[in-house]
Amino acid sequence: MSKPTPISGFPEWTPPQRMIEQYVLDRIRNAFELYGFAPLETRAVEPLDQLLRKGETSKEVYLIRRLQADESGAAGDDALGLHFDLTVPFARYVLENAGKLQFPFRRYQIQKVWRGERPQEGRYREFVQADIDIVDRDTLGAHHEAEIPLVIGDALRSLPIPPVLIQVNNRKICEGFYRGIGLTDPEAALRAVDKLDKIGPAKVAELLAQTAGASEAQAKACLALAEISAPDASFADAVRALGVSDPLLDEGIEELVRVVETAAEHSPGLCVADLRIARGLDYYTGTVYETQLRGYERYGSVCSGGRYDNLASAGAVRFPGVGISIGVTRLLGLLFGTGALTVSRDVPTCVLVAVTSEEERRASNRVADALRRRGVPTEVSPSAAKFGKQIRYAERRGIPYVWFPGADGAADEVKDIRSGEQHPATPDAWTPPPTDLKPQVN
Amino acid sequence: MSKPTPISGFPEWTPPQRMIEQYVLDRIRNAFELYGFAPLETRAVEPLDQLLRKGETSKEVYLIRRLQADESGAAGDDALGLHFDLTVPFARYVLENAGKLQFPFRRYQIQKVWRGERPQEGRYREFVQADIDIVDRDTLGAHHEAEIPLVIGDALRSLPIPPVLIQVNNRKICEGFYRGIGLTDPEAALRAVDKLDKIGPAKVAELLAQTAGASEAQAKACLALAEISAPDASFADAVRALGVSDPLLDEGIEELVRVVETAAEHSPGLCVADLRIARGLDYYTGTVYETQLRGYERYGSVCSGGRYDNLASAGAVRFPGVGISIGVTRLLGLLFGTGALTVSRDVPTCVLVAVTSEEERRASNRVADALRRRGVPTEVSPSAAKFGKQIRYAERRGIPYVWFPGADGAADEVKDIRSGEQHPATPDAWTPPPTDLKPQVN
Repeated sequence: MSKPTPISGFPEWTPPQRMIEQYVLDRIRNAFELYGFAPLETRAVEPLDQLLRKGETSKEVYLIRRLQADESGAAGDDALGLHFDLTVPFARYVLENAGKLQFPFRRYQIQKVWRGERPQEGRYREFVQADIDIVDRDTLGAHHEAEIPLVIGDALRSLPIPPVLIQVNNRKICEGFYRGIGLTDPEAALRAVDKLDKIGPAKVAELLAQTAGASEAQAKACLALAEISAPDASFADAVRALGVSDPLLDEGIEELVRVVETAAEHSPGLCVADLRIARGLDYYTGTVYETQLRGYERYGSVCSGGRYDNLASAGAVRFPGVGISIGVTRLLGLLFGTGALTVSRDVPTCVLVAVTSEEERRASNRVADALRRRGVPTEVSPSAAKFGKQIRYAERRGIPYVWFPGADGAADEVKDIRSGEQHPATPDAWTPPPTDLKPQVN
Repeated sequence: MSKPTPISGFPEWTPPQRMIEQYVLDRIRNAFELYGFAPLETRAVEPLDQLLRKGETSKEVYLIRRLQADESGAAGDDALGLHFDLTVPFARYVLENAGKLQFPFRRYQIQKVWRGERPQEGRYREFVQADIDIVDRDTLGAHHEAEIPLVIGDALRSLPIPPVLIQVNNRKICEGFYRGIGLTDPEAALRAVDKLDKIGPAKVAELLAQTAGASEAQAKACLALAEISAPDASFADAVRALGVSDPLLDEGIEELVRVVETAAEHSPGLCVADLRIARGLDYYTGTVYETQLRGYERYGSVCSGGRYDNLASAGAVRFPGVGISIGVTRLLGLLFGTGALTVSRDVPTCVLVAVTSEEERRASNRVADALRRRGVPTEVSPSAAKFGKQIRYAERRGIPYVWFPGADGAADEVKDIRSGEQHPATPDAWTPPPTDLKPQVN
């Protein structure tokens, strides 16, 4: 068989990198659970019509079909695709199970998603997202929009990564403002402003004229709004200074003030009101979030989301929600790329029990059993080679301790192979220092 | 939008069930790490030619393709399928990364897999497997085959499930025995005997005659071998009493004795040598494992595997391995079906902090923050409704405590809503009993 090669866009971490990923996912999960979010997993596939509801992303969907599907019967399979995010499946799940759920429903969901995009740095075809969402029936209190940055702030600050800055805006501010200055297609204006970072203000002004029918003065006003940024409620004064009046604008300002002030009280410097944040997707209706990793700003947001009022509805019943998604694979890919995340060894093993001879392997197994019962990750040497070779087995993997079972009634001894120190020990009592017990992520 | 419906074969657990699944996966992972297995995840897709190497299962593969794939370019995508197990991807991973790995390489892998099978009770199209494997370069010590049941025994016994019985056999015994009695196609004989539980001895004898060219006496001998079962090395005497002699048979007996004796020393009753265990797949070459959940035997094995010498090879280099796979979704599906697994509440939340009025929400947020900093999962009430309504919010989710922030300088109070007891408390000092801190799985 010829040597297999990687598939572009489908990253595979090494085992030490996977240890770091598990550490990161455990911390994120812990933060989500501290806020009372319940875990959920949805199936990897959704009916194609569900996946295409979201607009712009239809080109990214992977369809699945059975290799041996009989032409006649299993037509259902042909209309299934892999989910490309966790929000659309969640909205479907809520509709499907509304009768069994308690509202407001707070759930977190950590899963892989797939997009048939062209792979590039920081963009994958298969990647892990970690989402939280809160949905309610009919109405959802605006204070939930202020809670999301607290959860994400706690989750991301529990990780060994650079500090983050959560940028917040509110769609109502943009839409109200655009309407207030007389633009009739606020969504087109929003999509144009969303390109500000990519194409710059001059091109956005052109786009506003072309797609939203903006006059020069209107385009200038849109750009002035997008320039506003403040870590506190002072953004509201800057907006009002532009002299535009609209009820939706006022509502949006009030909601955004609440988000920024709640976040500032929880942790100063975590959040900034940044009125250029638009989020391209159509379904957001209130607060929107993006998150910059300090020092990695050029790679874009690592954690984004917002409020959506119309993603899930059945007849007259609506389920408004707010949520956010951490791009875990993207975050790790960036940090692995710069060597910013390391782990203290390549395996979970803390102790390697040496084997004196194959006849004595069971004695080594008994030592290992005793250590494991006390929570110490332990391997038994795969061979009864000379001790020097067994020690090298441990060294190559970063296993800190080698245990030598005592022969002929002599005491067992344990060696710290980093310092070379060796002491008598019994497997029912010996305990490694806490920092040696599990691999440490730095 | 019309109400969505489930897709057959793609199970979705409720949030409380997902809490149980996470608990189970955490325990399995902990057991695997205690034995020094390093974590690995492989991508969900493999090239179709890799997936079709394994023989019988080709009909079960799901292919993927991009919805908007341009007919010309992206031919690569068309030849990708979702993995149907974790062994084939692992063998591919080892070949691809052989130069970077340390051998013997011990890894665990817990992921979803997909099979386009007809769904039925205990059979899914999407399900989670938890695998361990040990591979080495060129040769792999037989003692690794004896280690696998210890790991699985520890993993499964750490779960709140009925006891298990691991049934072990060795392909070398069957093949050596079949050859020893003069059968020329031992694989055909193996496949016939593999159907013993399904179709009974009379039909197996017919099949042996038809597909393996067995005489009546040869078929009888094969069935006599398959009848042998013992929790200790006495199975070897029973095999020898059949009077068949073959070097491969002797090798197999020696290896199986070692597996059974190692397991008996570790935990009596965990393993039984059962010579009817064949495992239908072609790639096993030594020990094979199946696992019965006591009381659920009719649903078949919940954990299976074996030794494979020829799954991964590159030119003259071979990577023999041994591994086993816990069918997590299957196990949970069975136990959820009989109500045998429950969790003490529906959400991670231990404390609901009441909100006196929307103006006072920030005071409640501060209480919640203080509790979370001390590791207590806490929600703030979504509404400032009457306290009775806020208490019912907690009751409906099984949240055990409601916290009332003190008004006008009065002390805070915390109420155990199960007993009705209420005491003064401060969020910097109050701690719930350990059994209330996290949801308890029973």
